[in-house]
Amino acid sequence: MTLSLIETAMAQKPLGRIISGQLELVSDIFENHLVSDDEDLNSLCRHLERYRGKMLRPTLVLISGMAATGSDSEESLTDRHRILAAVVEMIHMATLVHDDILDESEVRRGGVTINALSGNDVAVMLGDYLISKSFHLCSTMGDPKINLALGEVTNTLCEGEVIQLHRRNDIDLSEETYLDIVGRKTGSLIGACCRLGGVISGVDDSICRALESFGTNIGTAFQIKDDLLDLIGDTKTIGKTVGRDLDLGKLTLPLIRLRMALSEEDRSLFDEAVRARDRARLQSLMDRSNPLESTIATANELVGSAKDEIRNLPAGPAVDLMLELADGVITRDA
Amino acid sequence: MTLSLIETAMAQKPLGRIISGQLELVSDIFENHLVSDDEDLNSLCRHLERYRGKMLRPTLVLISGMAATGSDSEESLTDRHRILAAVVEMIHMATLVHDDILDESEVRRGGVTINALSGNDVAVMLGDYLISKSFHLCSTMGDPKINLALGEVTNTLCEGEVIQLHRRNDIDLSEETYLDIVGRKTGSLIGACCRLGGVISGVDDSICRALESFGTNIGTAFQIKDDLLDLIGDTKTIGKTVGRDLDLGKLTLPLIRLRMALSEEDRSLFDEAVRARDRARLQSLMDRSNPLESTIATANELVGSAKDEIRNLPAGPAVDLMLELADGVITRDA
Repeated sequence: MTLSLIETAMAQKPLGRIISGQLELVSDIFENHLVSDDEDLNSLCRHLERYRGKMLRPTLVLISGMAATGSDSEESLTDRHRILAAVVEMIHMATLVHDDILDESEVRRGGVTINALSGNDVAVMLGDYLISKSFHLCSTMGDPKINLALGEVTNTLCEGEVIQLHRRNDIDLSEETYLDIVGRKTGSLIGACCRLGGVISGVDDSICRALESFGTNIGTAFQIKDDLLDLIGDTKTIGKTVGRDLDLGKLTLPLIRLRMALSEEDRSLFDEAVRARDRARLQSLMDRSNPLESTIATANELVGSAKDEIRNLPAGPAVDLMLELADGVITRDA
Repeated sequence: MTLSLIETAMAQKPLGRIISGQLELVSDIFENHLVSDDEDLNSLCRHLERYRGKMLRPTLVLISGMAATGSDSEESLTDRHRILAAVVEMIHMATLVHDDILDESEVRRGGVTINALSGNDVAVMLGDYLISKSFHLCSTMGDPKINLALGEVTNTLCEGEVIQLHRRNDIDLSEETYLDIVGRKTGSLIGACCRLGGVISGVDDSICRALESFGTNIGTAFQIKDDLLDLIGDTKTIGKTVGRDLDLGKLTLPLIRLRMALSEEDRSLFDEAVRARDRARLQSLMDRSNPLESTIATANELVGSAKDEIRNLPAGPAVDLMLELADGVITRDA
């Protein structure tokens, strides 16, 4: 997992300890903001805590906030960085809760999903509550610019989700459309985390844009890897239901690449196997033209571009950690 | 319907024509803000247009904005009033789209619901898109105070929905809990419409608070009437699936009152009828102790309190229209 990679790489470094400490404060903001006067609702929110693992998005807000100025001290991080970090984690949680409805998933991080636990209706409303709470928390910062940016990114994220839903069972889905969906659905929020970390640190727009490109690229790579794990991973290692994309007729990069590479004859076999949701038959077709390597190569290229984007940032441990994090997006196995 | 009541009452009056004209501008803002580069998404949003009927919430933002200062001229309404009016309508649309999932409804305003048309998954995401777009639109006003207020009201609204879900099949649901749910779910947004109309007009806090109480009270009365229509109305007149509350084990005011009034023996019959979702048997129990009259009386009391709240506002046609609107909440039959 990305966090364990950061932890392994950084546990001995001062910046690793700083970020861990800051993430504790972010968790406090997150949890305190979800307390209501209804105990059932509080208990649902407590259940969400087990969804939280990597905290990739809050981590990126914090590190970007430091990398933007080249600072290696936690003094450079403000309440606004920490609030925004909690906001993006809340948005992310909301998408997980609603995605699990769409994907009919029953397991997330080894625990039961809200839809499986309490039904789709409770999951719909809990997701709405998280979206509302995240906007509300963002509004406590009193900065219209940040509110507007958050609204833009959640618009884009929802567009990505709706486009993806409409492209289910589209056997002809192009690589271009796939990458567009992934960019909106995952790249946009992670890009915004990095950009806004810089915005709150008050640095030049050019630095904020570089941070955003970094985030968009690693976010897209992250989703490509996620989709790959859904295709070839197993539930036990990943801690969530796998094979859902195929079950739901969602074509992802390896399958899109595979289909393009097959002969006309094999392509009919492929189409049949997708319609039959038959992973085993797809596996045997993969032996003829292995698309996994080229999928990983694409993700690696995105990570490479991401790293290039931040090479001109002020040198320091924060940028170094971002470069390590970028690699972690691909090397993780869950 | 409320709008036809306003229309009937006001078509000949100058203020009625002003509000109708302003609502056209609000609709333009609403529609323009929902345009995206994805045609499937645009076509879903166009489908939503048939959901829009009463436009009670935007109407209240506009009239409250005028009543706050006693103005009878549209010059007193600003872009910010119209944007907020579009924002609250968008929030309302989002709740309709998600409520229809919860209620498994297939018909709304005589048209097919999004969940019935495109599936629950599309309805989940379209609702999220509307929530996101509404916050984004609100953020374009650049006023942190309004953003914060909107976040507070949507938090409350979602709390009401979650509490209601958890109280399904609770045969012992108290009148107090029912009114708490209704106040959060419906009263809060309508109260905020009225208050923020005044806030944008820049009037004293005491006037804004009076406007909010007016809205909260008529909102609660509105929901009581809605729930009553669901129990005793028919789909054709109302234009949406009725009987859903009972089907889903949601006890509403008439049934709560009926149960309290019954003898112990009849109460067991009542409990059985609710468990069996048997409207006919409940109907026959209602003959023994008719709770409909007392339900309407409660709604009327709330409307009376609402009207009292705004009697000290500057006299003029705007306040007069608000008083008429308050009555319309009860007299409507759909």
